[in-house]
Amino acid sequence: MKFGGTSVADTDRILHVANIIKKKYDENNQIAVVVSAMAGVTNDLIQKSKKISDEFPNDEYDALVSSGEQVTSTLLAAALQKLGIKSRSWLGWQIPIVTEGNYKNSRIISVNSKILNESMSQGVVPIIPGFQGLSKDNRITTIGRGGSDASAVAIAKCLDADFCEIYTDVEGVYTTNPAIEPKAKKIEKISYEEMLEMATLGAKVMQSSSVQKAMINDVDIYVKSTFSNNSGTQITSEDKISYDKVITGVAYSSDDAKITLQGVKDKPGVASAIFKPLYENNIVVDMIVQNISSDNSKTDITFTIKRDDLSKTKKLIEQLKQNLDYDKFISDDKVSKVSIVGAGMITHPGVAYKMFNALASKKINIQVISTSEIKISVLVDEQNTKEAVQVIHQMFELDK
Amino acid sequence: MKFGGTSVADTDRILHVANIIKKKYDENNQIAVVVSAMAGVTNDLIQKSKKISDEFPNDEYDALVSSGEQVTSTLLAAALQKLGIKSRSWLGWQIPIVTEGNYKNSRIISVNSKILNESMSQGVVPIIPGFQGLSKDNRITTIGRGGSDASAVAIAKCLDADFCEIYTDVEGVYTTNPAIEPKAKKIEKISYEEMLEMATLGAKVMQSSSVQKAMINDVDIYVKSTFSNNSGTQITSEDKISYDKVITGVAYSSDDAKITLQGVKDKPGVASAIFKPLYENNIVVDMIVQNISSDNSKTDITFTIKRDDLSKTKKLIEQLKQNLDYDKFISDDKVSKVSIVGAGMITHPGVAYKMFNALASKKINIQVISTSEIKISVLVDEQNTKEAVQVIHQMFELDK
Repeated sequence: MKFGGTSVADTDRILHVANIIKKKYDENNQIAVVVSAMAGVTNDLIQKSKKISDEFPNDEYDALVSSGEQVTSTLLAAALQKLGIKSRSWLGWQIPIVTEGNYKNSRIISVNSKILNESMSQGVVPIIPGFQGLSKDNRITTIGRGGSDASAVAIAKCLDADFCEIYTDVEGVYTTNPAIEPKAKKIEKISYEEMLEMATLGAKVMQSSSVQKAMINDVDIYVKSTFSNNSGTQITSEDKISYDKVITGVAYSSDDAKITLQGVKDKPGVASAIFKPLYENNIVVDMIVQNISSDNSKTDITFTIKRDDLSKTKKLIEQLKQNLDYDKFISDDKVSKVSIVGAGMITHPGVAYKMFNALASKKINIQVISTSEIKISVLVDEQNTKEAVQVIHQMFELDK
Repeated sequence: MKFGGTSVADTDRILHVANIIKKKYDENNQIAVVVSAMAGVTNDLIQKSKKISDEFPNDEYDALVSSGEQVTSTLLAAALQKLGIKSRSWLGWQIPIVTEGNYKNSRIISVNSKILNESMSQGVVPIIPGFQGLSKDNRITTIGRGGSDASAVAIAKCLDADFCEIYTDVEGVYTTNPAIEPKAKKIEKISYEEMLEMATLGAKVMQSSSVQKAMINDVDIYVKSTFSNNSGTQITSEDKISYDKVITGVAYSSDDAKITLQGVKDKPGVASAIFKPLYENNIVVDMIVQNISSDNSKTDITFTIKRDDLSKTKKLIEQLKQNLDYDKFISDDKVSKVSIVGAGMITHPGVAYKMFNALASKKINIQVISTSEIKISVLVDEQNTKEAVQVIHQMFELDK
């Protein structure tokens, strides 16, 4: 069971979480618990680090921010004891949760499950701070992407858990953002692959890297709300799901920028030359579309990046100008990506047509199209985002 | 160098502290630094623990509150690096600082000085969170009394440091509390023994247990202000001090309560019978005075305790009634203890007389007298505290 920051935001909520755990415990489950820092705590620590130095050293940063999860785990262990359940906090270095890689962005490579299993077999519930581990030179590390979710999945795997419950402040994964489309419905089951497509596209229930890790290790995940008793969304392998709908959800992102390089020489190595400096500067490129141009020796390349990276990307591309011929650099930071996701579409033809038709019915212009096996994405003008999501959601009857 | 909670209260002050360290470092000193939690942080964590449970488990408590010092040490290490000085945080379990005894109240039994010396010889300033250590079963402990001061003294001793500087929010130790007597002067040098008498009597510059530890290990201490460049007070052994004054300071405490048991049977084992339950209930007894009473078979015993413990003590004494005969239980929680302290008084006769005379000149009634080699204490009515301190301070010319 993993509880996120809003689930443990204050001592009342921690006491509430203890009751949720007690219920599961009383049903004769062996439970290990992973906790995040209390909401706001990590940000506060990061603010402090920024006030000290713009170049806060990564090793000290990890020892700093990991203290947040340490606090939560001791409070929750005490809250469980208050309910008469044996419990103790197990800090990352005590277990240990061994990591490798750089500070701020380490990867868990092993969890000493023996010590946790011993604890659980004696009826003691271990409370484990998420997000943290131990480097080989005995220092605290944090695991960048995925944070406490990734810890939970890694620990569930090492303990060979039946499943991993992620408690958060939403009821589960929805067919689309309910804030944009009030008719959005909770998805009962979603495959890892679909969830990955949903996640990177903006359904920010769980970090992609954690879903990926669960997929690789075949860990069944239940995302549910700390604040209700409703069943959540199960994230599992595709073969455990019977698809009665063509698509599973509509996702969108609205912090994208589109760049087009017109008239690029159509020869081997060109795409590589363009994306190498972006990769080297940690700029994440999302969609990449290349069209054959009218003039066969030249082509247009369009790609999208995060809006924040636009000016940096522009500079990097301009620096390429010496070695890379192109006619024109065009950028647009007023675009949105709208996607439909669903393993069901593999067996249903005409899904793309149906999506484009829905957009056409509202006179929404499609700028760029990109497809994968279980996802179709289009770029539209930012101001059409809401309408596009709604009409697609309706057309595929996701509200039914 | 040890910096207390107010010295590292916010990031600006931590940056200021880094500059103080840099100055010492640039004078070619090898420095190890001990830090407290940022002012308010420990109290906030304790508040949280209380909201979770009235019986917060001690082991979890230690893992909880130790996070405060962890935060400070990472921030200060980063602040030093910003000034171009190599530095890193060394958490209690990383060194390790091995402790024994109960959680919340452990004692440091060893500090791995090798690892710290290696660090310093490479020009790296170790920043060590005070107040914390590691138990033999690999859990975080905190060292109750003395806190970070005790850590600093223990580390100074293990490193065989030339001296231990305690940076705080006062300029040093004063002849009395300047809030009560504006003519109070800073003491340049004070012996461990005097400091112990001053400390327990209310001059709360340093915790007694830390002074005691420094005395036993012959660690020279300098108490100074983080917020000025003034020289502070040196706490050292008596033989390094030339006493030109009869007394060193006037201390007082105003949270005392006085209890008298009248008509106690004067036979062996009576005092022991009275104080055993108090000891067992962690009630600290300060002054104890026993007088021969008029009737030789009976005696009166007077003792003082902390005011907060009065009702508890009353109950415990009443429970004794079956086995312990006494005529009357009298208590007074409106008393103050005023004391003069000074190694110089050993060689100067008439010090007690001079003190009593000073009080008489202001018609202040002395309720109880108790003396040791370097201290004379009297109990007076609480409302006379200020006047008593002032007249004694003046009589012994401590303002000169």
